[in-house]
Amino acid sequence: MNQDYIQAHPWSIIEQGFDKEQVKSSESLFSIGNGAMGQRANFEEHYSGETFQGSYIAGVYYPDKTRVGWWKNGYPEYFAKVLNAPNWIGINVFVDGMPLDLNTCKTVNDFKRELNMKEGWYQRSFSAVLPNEVEIKAKITRFLSLDIDEVGAIRMELSPVNQDAEITFEPYLDSGITNEDTNWDDKFWNTTGVQVKNNRAFIEAHTMKTNFATCTFMQAQAGYNGKELDAHPDKKTDTRVSLQFKQNVAKGEHVSLTKYGGYTVSRNHDPSELVKVANTSLDKASELGFDALLKMQKEAWAKIWEMSDITITGDVKAQQGIRFNIFQLNQTYLGRDSRLNIGPKGFTGEKYGGSTYWDTEAYCLPFYMATKGPEVAWSLLEYRYNHLQKAIENAQKLGFTNGAALYPMVTMNGEECHNEWEITFEEIHRNGAIAFAIYNYVRFTGDYSYVPEMGLEVLIGIARFWNQRVNFSEAKQKYVMLGVTGPNEYENNVNNNWYSNYMAKWCIEYALENIEKINNEYPEDYKRIMGKTNLSASETEAWKKVVDQMYFPYSEEHQVFLQQDGFLDKELIKVDALAKSERPINQKWSWDRILRSPYIKQADVLQGFYFFEDHFTEEELEKHFDFYEPFTVHESSLSPCVHSIQAAKLGRMEQAYTFYLRTSRLDLDDYNKEVEEGLHITSMAGTWLSIVEGFGGLRVKDGELQYSPQIPQEWESYSFKINFRNQIVTITVEEGKSSFEITGSNELGIKVDGKSITLVPGKVVTA
Amino acid sequence: MNQDYIQAHPWSIIEQGFDKEQVKSSESLFSIGNGAMGQRANFEEHYSGETFQGSYIAGVYYPDKTRVGWWKNGYPEYFAKVLNAPNWIGINVFVDGMPLDLNTCKTVNDFKRELNMKEGWYQRSFSAVLPNEVEIKAKITRFLSLDIDEVGAIRMELSPVNQDAEITFEPYLDSGITNEDTNWDDKFWNTTGVQVKNNRAFIEAHTMKTNFATCTFMQAQAGYNGKELDAHPDKKTDTRVSLQFKQNVAKGEHVSLTKYGGYTVSRNHDPSELVKVANTSLDKASELGFDALLKMQKEAWAKIWEMSDITITGDVKAQQGIRFNIFQLNQTYLGRDSRLNIGPKGFTGEKYGGSTYWDTEAYCLPFYMATKGPEVAWSLLEYRYNHLQKAIENAQKLGFTNGAALYPMVTMNGEECHNEWEITFEEIHRNGAIAFAIYNYVRFTGDYSYVPEMGLEVLIGIARFWNQRVNFSEAKQKYVMLGVTGPNEYENNVNNNWYSNYMAKWCIEYALENIEKINNEYPEDYKRIMGKTNLSASETEAWKKVVDQMYFPYSEEHQVFLQQDGFLDKELIKVDALAKSERPINQKWSWDRILRSPYIKQADVLQGFYFFEDHFTEEELEKHFDFYEPFTVHESSLSPCVHSIQAAKLGRMEQAYTFYLRTSRLDLDDYNKEVEEGLHITSMAGTWLSIVEGFGGLRVKDGELQYSPQIPQEWESYSFKINFRNQIVTITVEEGKSSFEITGSNELGIKVDGKSITLVPGKVVTA
Repeated sequence: MNQDYIQAHPWSIIEQGFDKEQVKSSESLFSIGNGAMGQRANFEEHYSGETFQGSYIAGVYYPDKTRVGWWKNGYPEYFAKVLNAPNWIGINVFVDGMPLDLNTCKTVNDFKRELNMKEGWYQRSFSAVLPNEVEIKAKITRFLSLDIDEVGAIRMELSPVNQDAEITFEPYLDSGITNEDTNWDDKFWNTTGVQVKNNRAFIEAHTMKTNFATCTFMQAQAGYNGKELDAHPDKKTDTRVSLQFKQNVAKGEHVSLTKYGGYTVSRNHDPSELVKVANTSLDKASELGFDALLKMQKEAWAKIWEMSDITITGDVKAQQGIRFNIFQLNQTYLGRDSRLNIGPKGFTGEKYGGSTYWDTEAYCLPFYMATKGPEVAWSLLEYRYNHLQKAIENAQKLGFTNGAALYPMVTMNGEECHNEWEITFEEIHRNGAIAFAIYNYVRFTGDYSYVPEMGLEVLIGIARFWNQRVNFSEAKQKYVMLGVTGPNEYENNVNNNWYSNYMAKWCIEYALENIEKINNEYPEDYKRIMGKTNLSASETEAWKKVVDQMYFPYSEEHQVFLQQDGFLDKELIKVDALAKSERPINQKWSWDRILRSPYIKQADVLQGFYFFEDHFTEEELEKHFDFYEPFTVHESSLSPCVHSIQAAKLGRMEQAYTFYLRTSRLDLDDYNKEVEEGLHITSMAGTWLSIVEGFGGLRVKDGELQYSPQIPQEWESYSFKINFRNQIVTITVEEGKSSFEITGSNELGIKVDGKSITLVPGKVVTA
Repeated sequence: MNQDYIQAHPWSIIEQGFDKEQVKSSESLFSIGNGAMGQRANFEEHYSGETFQGSYIAGVYYPDKTRVGWWKNGYPEYFAKVLNAPNWIGINVFVDGMPLDLNTCKTVNDFKRELNMKEGWYQRSFSAVLPNEVEIKAKITRFLSLDIDEVGAIRMELSPVNQDAEITFEPYLDSGITNEDTNWDDKFWNTTGVQVKNNRAFIEAHTMKTNFATCTFMQAQAGYNGKELDAHPDKKTDTRVSLQFKQNVAKGEHVSLTKYGGYTVSRNHDPSELVKVANTSLDKASELGFDALLKMQKEAWAKIWEMSDITITGDVKAQQGIRFNIFQLNQTYLGRDSRLNIGPKGFTGEKYGGSTYWDTEAYCLPFYMATKGPEVAWSLLEYRYNHLQKAIENAQKLGFTNGAALYPMVTMNGEECHNEWEITFEEIHRNGAIAFAIYNYVRFTGDYSYVPEMGLEVLIGIARFWNQRVNFSEAKQKYVMLGVTGPNEYENNVNNNWYSNYMAKWCIEYALENIEKINNEYPEDYKRIMGKTNLSASETEAWKKVVDQMYFPYSEEHQVFLQQDGFLDKELIKVDALAKSERPINQKWSWDRILRSPYIKQADVLQGFYFFEDHFTEEELEKHFDFYEPFTVHESSLSPCVHSIQAAKLGRMEQAYTFYLRTSRLDLDDYNKEVEEGLHITSMAGTWLSIVEGFGGLRVKDGELQYSPQIPQEWESYSFKINFRNQIVTITVEEGKSSFEITGSNELGIKVDGKSITLVPGKVVTA
């Protein structure tokens, strides 16, 4: 843990007291989003201290050109960057002509931030003495509407404490912004028009290269003692426009400004109509008014929580942690737009670029599937189906043929945009996660229709890739896979990474199984797909050979599969023998040192045991867990959750809880000293998994929900819901007792600790 | 071979006929240099066609900042670029006001380029019809003086063929130049002053960041019918200055312009005196005059050839090839300045950046040692001694301690400036070449004094590095070296690269041996060095363990050492089974495909057999050669020479000759389709080695020269000289007969095919 200034509270994230050192960190933690746009918790008024400005529009990116590996072929031409978008939140404030700037105020008292997760709003309040001795009390409330998702609303209330004062609001828009992260210091935005009309303003700007046209808009109104103030257009430059409201405010009285703003984008509208659509959105928002909009916001969030909340009693920090994770996942992706996906930083920062990693399939899908329903999960699968052609082209660039598909490591639009050879070209296990998600979807939802409709083509492309990617080793008389990077990115270009080999074998088997099934059960689809893919019998025969003769490195001595060839040649010093000063090794060690060390960034062999739990005995799991976990530094946010689930399965609740803490409050407590760069959104789904699959022991087997509930001794009880095939099952777990409830009108058979139980609507069943 | 337009000639490189497609290629091939500066064969007059402008000043570079591997620690901050320097050669020409531009002329006849290697000058002549129908005959001669190495001279002679014409010369200087290769489109030069004085002009400019101050200067004079023309200052901008000479020239008459130009640099002079020093140089040059300077040039080159020429009779292309290589090596490095080194492209292009690779120690040192003498070789060793502290710091950045030294992969000033992790951090075998060069120097020169004076400190730093870089494998009960890139860069991050392991073991042994020797024979030096390095007995004990228990991968089946762990898992398809369309693989295949293929870029195991020939039997060499060569694509220019030497040793002269051809005319015939980017300077030393060590079978053993001469059947005879311990030994080889001569006053015992012979000055001995 690197910070502990966030106050424990079951429903809110709260900071009290002004600490300049925490500003960037809090800007991440108090970020808000509504799936369509997002906003770091930057101050509305000017702040001259250290800050990381970030306003983001879903799906709007810039392809920053890459320049690496100039003598290595196959790199993508660009690295898609999440873009800092024009600023719509800005409201400069002047008090008797003196700018309000918390960095230069004489004192800042009663500073408080609250992110109310239950209702979906963010509020900041303080009392500050300006250099001109005027003391000002302020309260600013902000939210991004879930109902009108192009609009955000801000209410700023100010009151002079110690004397009368002239207060000036200057709400503004600004497209002269920069990105923290740029390779070539390119200009990312081109502004084409700046307009003011009464109390509204509009900036039209498009991204360079990708040419996303946007209109950033605002409307501002100010009131004092029940009367509305006049808006004066203030300054207008090529990239900035502001309005001005001025009022002499009596000591103790309040003046307030309400600002609506946001973006209309050519992704959703005709580019020539952006200003018009912006006006319509502003009409809607202002007709409703701030309070009605906020009321709708509360109702919308209530609906989300109704389905996705996890309650924990007896441990308020754990309660806060899990809700923070669930809240952020919902701020990032709502499943409304199948062109969107779940970026690793969501709308809270720029790092990593791109929006879609294997995180989506490996970690996020189960969360959205169980808390939202099958149609959102379908959207996520469809996203990959829509990118299949690009995945085939991507594989072609690397020399693969015949419809082999390699999904990108990172993407915005289906094209690869990561640019390190050891990842882009070699971290190919990602392909397996795409196939596994299809399997997982069918297993959970019982809906097979995706496979004949779209999924089988994806599975065939993936199987073709693996079949071409392995080669037969005369020395081993087995198929081997050379030159890969596994999920543990602290190894590069290794041979026979067990996870990748296992995934390859499984993907081919799963494709074969589904080809067979669709041939038998969906003859029309079968004909169509075979025609489209040109799959031949000799091809599938070759696949079967790979399945039968795949090589898996194994240590007889340790009775474990080896993460890769040669793993045992390393200096096998366990993590607990490493000095604290050496960690995190990714900040302290050079890359070659990390590579030749035994240290594991995130679950690798164990990730395979997680996905394919049923293929191994609990004894085998234990052996592998005990062999690998001691070498695991968990420097990926995706690592602790898998270990937490497996520790729980092994009945090691204390260890499971330790891992859980690390994932659930990773950002709140800033374990990796980087929260100021943004939040770890995708790993938040892992936290959810830790409770649901770890403590709750939830599995779906043979079309049936199975639980084996346990509870950390630190908790009194916890409870979560699952949308299982359109019935909502709620489990509440206490020490020694779990109770179940079900909605709807049908009974549902489940298993608890291996015992069958029937749930009847309207009745609480205790096990 | 990708081109064959260069005419065969024993002493000159000749192109006839104007082909726009060849311009960039010829700009490389006809480059001139004098060790202090260099110039691609760009036209003096404006050329609107495809061209690659390049003027280079030795030791002047720019640290282009890198942006790769943002999450991988230890990268250097910059990549030193060879810099295109301000243009001093430019002479624009106007004929009746119409610019002479070979790209737009109606016809270009009798176009000829000649690079006279014997005398060290370059000449271009042609007859061109301009768009205004005036036909102009031209002859331009250019050289960079070996005597006044800051000065180059150009004489341009023009004559109207078909009518009288007004001819205008505009000699100019221009610092508004760009680099082909830049990561960030930075501006590399800042111009601070532009001056004209009579017929002289000066541009003062310094490089950004590195702040090398330079004065680019010129003096021009023109003559017609014995009378000197007046110089008119023409235009002057912030980065350009020109003079103007105008003359009405009668049909058939000649007008000529002589231009002296070049650079004075703060590396050699007080930065405030650069213009003054430039004036002095111009005084010297112009007092001597063009013809006298050219005469001195011929004499200086005659001296170089006297010692370094290799003659071949019966094969003019081979003769031309070897002289081209020797000529370029001498154009690049003369051993006068121990701060300089031998850049892989010399003064002929920008590619690769930096100036010093392991090429210097592994390939170039023997050439300079044998054709120039021990003091030049000492200079090259001293260069590395001077960088020892930086090498220690470089190792520290990667986590090594206690004075371990890792020499950079690429450097200008001792700091690492390459930036690919698999090379920068892992291609550590380079350290071995530095140690081997010390061994080679002592072996060849018999001068041990370098070791106590400087070399032992270097050897200790290197041994320390290897000792820390290996680790003990419990599984193998041996020391292993994980995560390296060997000389074969088509493998990255492999374990137990045989060459690297062998080199490490040898380096430690060689250090131990020299510590012992210096302890016994140079007690004062021993004390000083031990004090400086803090070397302890326990440390050397640890080294001995590594020497005794180093692991070497070996295949019992094939009876060969394996290039690295797992080599036999590859799909072992030989190169001759690869389709032509797939090659060169570094242009056709993605990087991951290359990595998992068995294809070898350049000698790796065989490179070790080359360095440590005496450690292995000829039978072992044969086995390894026959195993590895069929997988070798020789896509490094450094590959064929080693194979040529080894094929010759195995008595396979036909194969040896084939490899020789590939190295000797690599650039002239453009085997790798890239000569337009510049020449492969360092590999030219490999060509020399192919003849001297390959065909001539020269070795130094037990302080004695040993030959085992053979001759390719395509040749009648060949001859080369060796400066062996200050006596010049000349060998002339014909079929079935070799004759030897020696200079000086002492006899010298040598071995020829194992038989001892005594050489007596003044007598030709035949064996």
